[in-house]
Amino acid sequence: MGGDHGPSVTLPACRQFLDAHPLADLVLVGTAAALQPAQGWPRCSLVVATEVVAMDDGVEVALRRKRDSSMRVAISQLKPAPSNSALAVEGLALAAADVCVSAGNTGALMAVARYVLKTFEGIDRPAIAALLPNMRGGFTKVLDLGANVDCSAEHLLQFAVMGSALVSALDGNEQPSVGLLNIGEEAIKGSEVTKRAGELLRAADAAGQLNFYGNVEGNDIFKGTTDLVVCDGFVGNVLLKTSEGLAGMMGQFIKEEFSRTPLAKLAALMALPVLKRFKDRVDHRRYSGGALLGLRGLVFKAHGSSDAFAFERALARAYDAARNRLLDRVHDRIRNTFAVLPDAAAPGGAETGDATPSAKAA
Amino acid sequence: MGGDHGPSVTLPACRQFLDAHPLADLVLVGTAAALQPAQGWPRCSLVVATEVVAMDDGVEVALRRKRDSSMRVAISQLKPAPSNSALAVEGLALAAADVCVSAGNTGALMAVARYVLKTFEGIDRPAIAALLPNMRGGFTKVLDLGANVDCSAEHLLQFAVMGSALVSALDGNEQPSVGLLNIGEEAIKGSEVTKRAGELLRAADAAGQLNFYGNVEGNDIFKGTTDLVVCDGFVGNVLLKTSEGLAGMMGQFIKEEFSRTPLAKLAALMALPVLKRFKDRVDHRRYSGGALLGLRGLVFKAHGSSDAFAFERALARAYDAARNRLLDRVHDRIRNTFAVLPDAAAPGGAETGDATPSAKAA
Repeated sequence: MGGDHGPSVTLPACRQFLDAHPLADLVLVGTAAALQPAQGWPRCSLVVATEVVAMDDGVEVALRRKRDSSMRVAISQLKPAPSNSALAVEGLALAAADVCVSAGNTGALMAVARYVLKTFEGIDRPAIAALLPNMRGGFTKVLDLGANVDCSAEHLLQFAVMGSALVSALDGNEQPSVGLLNIGEEAIKGSEVTKRAGELLRAADAAGQLNFYGNVEGNDIFKGTTDLVVCDGFVGNVLLKTSEGLAGMMGQFIKEEFSRTPLAKLAALMALPVLKRFKDRVDHRRYSGGALLGLRGLVFKAHGSSDAFAFERALARAYDAARNRLLDRVHDRIRNTFAVLPDAAAPGGAETGDATPSAKAA
Repeated sequence: MGGDHGPSVTLPACRQFLDAHPLADLVLVGTAAALQPAQGWPRCSLVVATEVVAMDDGVEVALRRKRDSSMRVAISQLKPAPSNSALAVEGLALAAADVCVSAGNTGALMAVARYVLKTFEGIDRPAIAALLPNMRGGFTKVLDLGANVDCSAEHLLQFAVMGSALVSALDGNEQPSVGLLNIGEEAIKGSEVTKRAGELLRAADAAGQLNFYGNVEGNDIFKGTTDLVVCDGFVGNVLLKTSEGLAGMMGQFIKEEFSRTPLAKLAALMALPVLKRFKDRVDHRRYSGGALLGLRGLVFKAHGSSDAFAFERALARAYDAARNRLLDRVHDRIRNTFAVLPDAAAPGGAETGDATPSAKAA
């Protein structure tokens, strides 16, 4: 139901996804009217919800007032975590899904997911990771992108550990390099939080828990200097929006220049296939789909402005992540790191529902 | 002497600047050998310094060890501030300059300028403001860009006031709109510091001291939503480096696509004038030159990677700023704001050399 365009975009995307992934099953959650066109689709079950979280609803409305929202019902379809083996793609016998995808209100999605799923022990706030294209032809994973402002050094370490799990699940790279976003390469640079985070990351590297490259700067994201870049959610949100804004401006400048004179228009005609290839390469829809990490269930966020292509890409990425056991990978890495570096865990982490001895004691 | 290329770039730029600005005088500061080619240039005096701050020298080296550095000597050429009337462009009778331009080591320049010039009363740390192109065809001024990490809400207000003075001096716009960089438009969004800064900015607006638009997001910089955007130096540095990195990547992608096949190369030939116009439009050399604000003297920083064109642009911008009395404008606006909102001033601001009663009492 979510996103700027709702079912007019998500339904065609779901249909495309089903056709392209013959082993996948989908559970569509929405109002009865919205789900109507999907009646009879193969490998697709429908779950009706009576309410919808609007894009401008506050977190409180999503959490307390709309208890039967499609967002909440969709998240509730996820099987108890950490998942062990059975994937939804092998059948819906358990009536439980492996991953949830939404293009809805980000703040509400974070809050509802956190409320319904809880976070892993030692993680107090989930993070959003996204993919930005780089000059090496790949994608640099960046987190956190807007969920957590006022992060501590421990949060940045947690992002590094969870992000490493994401890279391993998406790219099969088990030792991804981690860069700490900073304002200079030297270890002494930066804010108090980044300096302390650098120390924690070096300690985690020394303990064999991750592959810490060192400080990186904003331009390193697009150079692809490291596989992963960690930063606090404020900085991450600004850099993402700034990048979108700049890419949009450059795109408009190209358009304007190629339509300024008749000769320029002729050149544009000649250059059309080249310009199209360029456009495809920087098309942010290709890498649409951020992962919410740290939760006891897999949730992916598609861009609110997603069209059908972008939403289908988000579905495909979420499907890959689930097949590659992203949830278990995050859980394993986090548990191992906290075992070696216990101070890195949030003292009052949300352990509700956890079966470990420490949680029972809490 | 500074920048990645030193006098091989700065000298030709100075010569170009002199030729293009027949009323301007230049004081060149450098080693005797470096200044040699400028012997006999019109309206140009030479001041020899025996040392040079290297691009990788630490702040301590620049401040304590290299006391006769070209950087320090150049800053010492500035006339006592706040300046009153006589501009260096009217002659060098006072042997004192109105503005200093350097492409050298940013950290060292900040530290030496702060040490030699001192900051205005109530300002404890100078800020760097830069210009980023926007879709309206103008430039959005953004500060702080890397000088101050861990900013307080009061610092952000000071940036807004000083940045407004910069816009008024460069564009003749006396009521520039100010945006507070944040992760959402709503006033309740953001970190603790940005929320408090929003309150201070609204109070300053209500008191008629500035024209506060409200929160803006990263993409608004390139949309040109406001004339000025304020943020802390960490975020500013990240957004600047991210923008440079993304623009560089997009430029490389265009180049690659237009040389991929013989047909693409032919299209490139046709599109050459269009591509050149596009390149000029996003050419960051055009808006090279950041202003250091809050000091009792005008200092401009050219990008370390400046070529002769970029350095000449920085000289021209600094010259315009000096002619439009940027220093007095900053001083006036800061003084007026602190008179109305005394809490906005830094309690222990560096008042050394100030002639106001409060400074004498300190």
